[in-house]
Amino acid sequence: MIPRYSRKEMADIWEPANRFHIWFLIEAHACDALADLGVIPKEAAKAVWAGGDKPYTDERIAKIDEIERVTKHDVIAFLTELAEHIGPDSRFVHQGMTSSDVLDTCLAVQMTQAADILLADLDRVLAALKKRAIETKEAICIGRSHGIHAEPTTFGVKLAGHYAAFKRNRDRLLAARADIATCAISGAVGTFANIDPRVEEHVAAKLGLTPEPMSTQVIPRDRHAAFFATLAVIAGSIENLAIEIRHLQRTELREAEEYFSPGQKGSSAMPHKRNPVLTENMTGLARMIRAYALPALENVALWHERDISHSSVERMIGPDATVTLDFALNRLAGVVENLVVYPENMLANLNSLGGLHNSQRVLLQLTQAGMSREDAYKAVQRNAMESWKTGKSFQNLLKADEEVARHLQDDAIDALFDLGYHVKHVDTILDRVFAEDA
Amino acid sequence: MIPRYSRKEMADIWEPANRFHIWFLIEAHACDALADLGVIPKEAAKAVWAGGDKPYTDERIAKIDEIERVTKHDVIAFLTELAEHIGPDSRFVHQGMTSSDVLDTCLAVQMTQAADILLADLDRVLAALKKRAIETKEAICIGRSHGIHAEPTTFGVKLAGHYAAFKRNRDRLLAARADIATCAISGAVGTFANIDPRVEEHVAAKLGLTPEPMSTQVIPRDRHAAFFATLAVIAGSIENLAIEIRHLQRTELREAEEYFSPGQKGSSAMPHKRNPVLTENMTGLARMIRAYALPALENVALWHERDISHSSVERMIGPDATVTLDFALNRLAGVVENLVVYPENMLANLNSLGGLHNSQRVLLQLTQAGMSREDAYKAVQRNAMESWKTGKSFQNLLKADEEVARHLQDDAIDALFDLGYHVKHVDTILDRVFAEDA
Amino acid sequence: MIPRYSRKEMADIWEPANRFHIWFLIEAHACDALADLGVIPKEAAKAVWAGGDKPYTDERIAKIDEIERVTKHDVIAFLTELAEHIGPDSRFVHQGMTSSDVLDTCLAVQMTQAADILLADLDRVLAALKKRAIETKEAICIGRSHGIHAEPTTFGVKLAGHYAAFKRNRDRLLAARADIATCAISGAVGTFANIDPRVEEHVAAKLGLTPEPMSTQVIPRDRHAAFFATLAVIAGSIENLAIEIRHLQRTELREAEEYFSPGQKGSSAMPHKRNPVLTENMTGLARMIRAYALPALENVALWHERDISHSSVERMIGPDATVTLDFALNRLAGVVENLVVYPENMLANLNSLGGLHNSQRVLLQLTQAGMSREDAYKAVQRNAMESWKTGKSFQNLLKADEEVARHLQDDAIDALFDLGYHVKHVDTILDRVFAEDA
Amino acid sequence: MIPRYSRKEMADIWEPANRFHIWFLIEAHACDALADLGVIPKEAAKAVWAGGDKPYTDERIAKIDEIERVTKHDVIAFLTELAEHIGPDSRFVHQGMTSSDVLDTCLAVQMTQAADILLADLDRVLAALKKRAIETKEAICIGRSHGIHAEPTTFGVKLAGHYAAFKRNRDRLLAARADIATCAISGAVGTFANIDPRVEEHVAAKLGLTPEPMSTQVIPRDRHAAFFATLAVIAGSIENLAIEIRHLQRTELREAEEYFSPGQKGSSAMPHKRNPVLTENMTGLARMIRAYALPALENVALWHERDISHSSVERMIGPDATVTLDFALNRLAGVVENLVVYPENMLANLNSLGGLHNSQRVLLQLTQAGMSREDAYKAVQRNAMESWKTGKSFQNLLKADEEVARHLQDDAIDALFDLGYHVKHVDTILDRVFAEDA
Repeated sequence: MIPRYSRKEMADIWEPANRFHIWFLIEAHACDALADLGVIPKEAAKAVWAGGDKPYTDERIAKIDEIERVTKHDVIAFLTELAEHIGPDSRFVHQGMTSSDVLDTCLAVQMTQAADILLADLDRVLAALKKRAIETKEAICIGRSHGIHAEPTTFGVKLAGHYAAFKRNRDRLLAARADIATCAISGAVGTFANIDPRVEEHVAAKLGLTPEPMSTQVIPRDRHAAFFATLAVIAGSIENLAIEIRHLQRTELREAEEYFSPGQKGSSAMPHKRNPVLTENMTGLARMIRAYALPALENVALWHERDISHSSVERMIGPDATVTLDFALNRLAGVVENLVVYPENMLANLNSLGGLHNSQRVLLQLTQAGMSREDAYKAVQRNAMESWKTGKSFQNLLKADEEVARHLQDDAIDALFDLGYHVKHVDTILDRVFAEDA
Repeated sequence: MIPRYSRKEMADIWEPANRFHIWFLIEAHACDALADLGVIPKEAAKAVWAGGDKPYTDERIAKIDEIERVTKHDVIAFLTELAEHIGPDSRFVHQGMTSSDVLDTCLAVQMTQAADILLADLDRVLAALKKRAIETKEAICIGRSHGIHAEPTTFGVKLAGHYAAFKRNRDRLLAARADIATCAISGAVGTFANIDPRVEEHVAAKLGLTPEPMSTQVIPRDRHAAFFATLAVIAGSIENLAIEIRHLQRTELREAEEYFSPGQKGSSAMPHKRNPVLTENMTGLARMIRAYALPALENVALWHERDISHSSVERMIGPDATVTLDFALNRLAGVVENLVVYPENMLANLNSLGGLHNSQRVLLQLTQAGMSREDAYKAVQRNAMESWKTGKSFQNLLKADEEVARHLQDDAIDALFDLGYHVKHVDTILDRVFAEDA
Repeated sequence: MIPRYSRKEMADIWEPANRFHIWFLIEAHACDALADLGVIPKEAAKAVWAGGDKPYTDERIAKIDEIERVTKHDVIAFLTELAEHIGPDSRFVHQGMTSSDVLDTCLAVQMTQAADILLADLDRVLAALKKRAIETKEAICIGRSHGIHAEPTTFGVKLAGHYAAFKRNRDRLLAARADIATCAISGAVGTFANIDPRVEEHVAAKLGLTPEPMSTQVIPRDRHAAFFATLAVIAGSIENLAIEIRHLQRTELREAEEYFSPGQKGSSAMPHKRNPVLTENMTGLARMIRAYALPALENVALWHERDISHSSVERMIGPDATVTLDFALNRLAGVVENLVVYPENMLANLNSLGGLHNSQRVLLQLTQAGMSREDAYKAVQRNAMESWKTGKSFQNLLKADEEVARHLQDDAIDALFDLGYHVKHVDTILDRVFAEDA
Repeated sequence: MIPRYSRKEMADIWEPANRFHIWFLIEAHACDALADLGVIPKEAAKAVWAGGDKPYTDERIAKIDEIERVTKHDVIAFLTELAEHIGPDSRFVHQGMTSSDVLDTCLAVQMTQAADILLADLDRVLAALKKRAIETKEAICIGRSHGIHAEPTTFGVKLAGHYAAFKRNRDRLLAARADIATCAISGAVGTFANIDPRVEEHVAAKLGLTPEPMSTQVIPRDRHAAFFATLAVIAGSIENLAIEIRHLQRTELREAEEYFSPGQKGSSAMPHKRNPVLTENMTGLARMIRAYALPALENVALWHERDISHSSVERMIGPDATVTLDFALNRLAGVVENLVVYPENMLANLNSLGGLHNSQRVLLQLTQAGMSREDAYKAVQRNAMESWKTGKSFQNLLKADEEVARHLQDDAIDALFDLGYHVKHVDTILDRVFAEDA
């Protein structure tokens, strides 16, 4: 995570102000539950809220840091500073809890906050893709397999495919969010020896989490692994669309282009030098987000009830993965929203091979008109080769071929070059993709 | 995937006999749909089933291989061989379809078959963990954080935690299975130009798949990425439990051991040399399964409507990841089912520090008995240190400490060393973990 | 590793026949050393060679497998079968050694054998690149940054760049080979308690290895990690060249193409449908080779003197990574050797923008002719824009521009469109790249 | 990279002040070369040094940022600010160069600076390991395979093994440093069309780099991949030693411990609760450093002469990987330097099985005394089992065994329990490991 690739809203989740505020909420809600259970006085719980429920200013954070330099323990430093605001009742705070109860539950809250932003990001990407897909659903272009012209499709269909992928990613992220949205307040090794399980239930409910069925001082890390693995899958889809756009913007294709603002200079005097730098950038960011999933997967196998090897990893990938993905998704949404599409170039590219993409269709029709498959194949290939080598119109060559003419008249041949044939199911496809949105 | 780490049932999914049989089913069901639509004669569809629905013997497979060496195209070789069994009606087979329609839909079927075996594997692991957890729920042992004694827990609680993780993994795998269970019969670039979408719907229904809302010759690879990423998460949980057992089997702990058959020799004359080789082996296998997720994540970003870079990857990780995970899960289930548990060693280890794990509890009680937290801390630490250095009983030292004695009488101290305190919520925890199973 | 992507020579390294033969060599050389040291009779050492030095036939291997099924120990099974060939003196074999001495040293031999094949593969790739680079060093083509036309280069220069990368990879592989070429015969925890260090020295010398300075039953795994990481770097270079070719073969570029044999059919009736399937395939294989490095990196951190978690990993990635890389390098060499190059298409693509790639050069010349940089920039961009939008010749537009004409005459402008300017240092570059080969 | 895990010296390399200063050096040295070649006036080159060679203060950096917000181009912003300090001669700066010439060469300088710090870090680790290895070379402890007691070794031998690994890592890093220490000043696509190759040679020499034989606007990324892969291998060795220490600090072993400062509190009142948090932390950091190698490996395959997908990756992993590794190595050195070693616990653990680790040796001696291997094995196992189950002394049991007594007298048995047997080659091993240091 570096400022260049960060958005403030997401970065703020990982700032001390937010973290300490969440810590406070955990402690204060726990006090309420402890008070209800008669473990601490009800007045104490009230005092905690009254004294402590205020923003963590830079001044307060500096104070906590100062204390931590002495105690070398972050939660103790936090509690010490908090005590100054609460007064004597502060001794009832944190009763029966361990630091991990606070830290792990806080991480769960931060990750759900991050997930919520990412879900909104995905919604922005989805909205952009849908809008542009519908706009361009009739923009016919050549479909390419292996980078080679295959058969026609439309630009809208391309975008609809990416929409469907991001829709799946949204579902996956929702599942991953649920996976990490648990609360653990269970004590030193998760046995609730020193704290009633009902405290955990109360705090969980207040923070929008579910109680962790079985924690061992820490929330089990397969949850986090599944979360970061999901971000990696989403990164793959970003890369997929980014590479599509990078390809289409190549000088020789120029079927679509990242938007250039009027004042923006290309990298030189050459006006064609509009580089797809945003999608190239996302390609790199996708690599990073994928990489962050690995240490998360290795974090699962902690020793016994816990070791702390996961902590340094999460201090890094927690912010890094979510901030980078948030940035990439927003950049992607912007690229899609403003993408400049060139339908005329699409058609020019499609036609550059003289209608050769209809060769299979001609072959099929010849067979149905009575030729054997072998003869039909030879006739089609003979004319296709000629067209390919000389640049002559495939359509005209077919008409001039005696053997073909015996089976298909000119108008029948012309009918085989109708682009509508290829795109007749565009609405079917878009209906399927957008079906659930209705 | 190597024979040493393979189980036949899973390996067979990736054998030619199964693959060709699935190809046949796809083609035959497609013929039914085409016949219903009037595209091909109903008699032809019947002829396909009548002639072709029989096992792919080694002889048939050898024949297909022989043809492929000439045509250099696997699907054509398959169709040529099939034609011999069907007769003239074979020309109606594969009408309007592309090879990828067959290949990708077949892969989806193979992956769902693999997922079903893995789900059964997880069920076996879950059953073993639950059984052993309930059996050992009262086997008190020391919980360890950072490898250091913390507070007591029970062996059953440990196992319940792993049960919960594998339960989550089961849910994740179910989602991943749904993700890859789609059928694509949509033609060269997914536009249905040459085939009616209803064919895809019919084949999907017959094969237990859902129609892929938007394919582009290929089924989008974010689905496969999510699948293999899920296997990687499961591998993490295997490693987690494997490492727990490896730790417990260490010479100095010996709280649990992989089962050794009566005739089995250790690696030497030393009877203690019972190495946790199965769980060590699983640790390595987990690394492999994690690694296989990476190329699957990189496969998402195919060029345009498709390139074929994913194919070599999937030919390798398809079998490798599922066979290895299947093997590891079964090995794990066996280890858990037969795990030898030593409750007496657990107690001995727990007591080896003379009850020091109760120091926090003593501290808490002294505070409630009126000591300031600072004084209580000093008193506890003074005696804990003495016990730690000299090996004397912490419990006895406390009784002999004058300051402590002023606040707590001997029987009050003894009460603080009751193990029941730590395990009073064991049933609560197990109930939470096993709740949904009822 | 699957047969489809395997070459026999490399795959054979990992077959039992080679493994058992290496085991025999280790044991027999060790006997020689033990005999020299007077630990065992000289006659015994001779008997070992006399009886045991013969190929491991399928029959012998089956016998060993049969014994292993009973003893469940591979080295013991091997020694038992060997004893039948040696007679009573066989009891002197393996004295003071541990199984790992044999297994780890054998792996070292196998990896050096694999490395030698890979070095030969790299030589084939290098030879092909050099030959084609020199052949095509004057084939001018447009250089592309961001997929967008930049300035001219030549195809030979492109290939020379890849040559340089593979030359570096050769050096890296040599270093990695040296890293894993060590021999360990040091006993149960590497202390030589039961075997004289001179045995290790002798065996190492005979097998072309160096004695491992410090083994702990096993050879330290950072060596293997460095080896597999190096294979991953080489895979990156394969992918880099593969992607270059895939790009150049795109329908719109067609500057180079994988060779198609005369009889080879494209995937359809369309003759342009020559897909870069070999380089796409290599792209996928590169992903796999990269992935195999990961578990090798995780293998470094074994527990204490050793655990066996690395073993399952190496049984898989040992063959998988080397066989796959060997296959990919040979496929790559073949693609380069037979690559069809289209210099006329290169020129056509280069000129498709009407010489716009000289805009910077024109700008520079106008400045030197006295215009301010700002004015020169405006003049160039004005004409470049016009050319870009209308397709008119940039060169002619400049001549017709009054402001430009005031500073540059027609022949001066023409001189700026000389392609020679861009390629004047081609020989300098090739000399640098091929310098060390002389 | 987060402040918590950063050391200033390494972090500063990646700060703007250092980057801009390197940019200046590249430009100024290039001016010298251009002046020597007569391309620009000699006075101009002097003016560049005279005006520009001063530190990049926060003020200057803020100015550059301000300009970049307008121009959206970092190198142009840099040049504009620089011009203010140089005056009119500034127009001669950057002649014929591209931004990448500056950026990529700067990255090479930064990476060599980082490598030099890492080499010094490794030297610190090596010095600490060697010192402690020699100190503890006679501290006998049990060697453990699979976590199970095997045969005796010494703590110094353990450390010597890690020393050897870090020595290899030093060699690997030196090679990796050489790999990335190249300079590219070759223009838009690396053809030197607008700049003489001698400029590159001059700048390279001045900056301690070698000229890149073949750049394509960018320095080829296999170099960077090899560099980051090497850091990943080093991380593996860190993890390996970290895990050894974590194991030895376990409550049940306590053979070594991270140093606790006198004032430092454990996490509770329990004095044994000294957690190996530093080595656990390094375990996590190692995971991160490994992960950073992946995107570096994916960066190799840029499109054609370059795309910019590598840039975002390197902006992140450049600092992240080097800063994290620097931090981890220094933390590791500190841990080793101050490691508390408990030889008495080592002996106690070694003896806890009553000398069973000598069973193989007894077996061997019985054979040499005339027993058949089968009978000897049975005799040894009988007594070993008894010792293992009852805790009785293995040594005494052997003496009391009639069959054993027939072959070995009491003093012969006692001789087999001499620890010196196992450690007689300790100096041999240390000599081998430290040989090259002489």
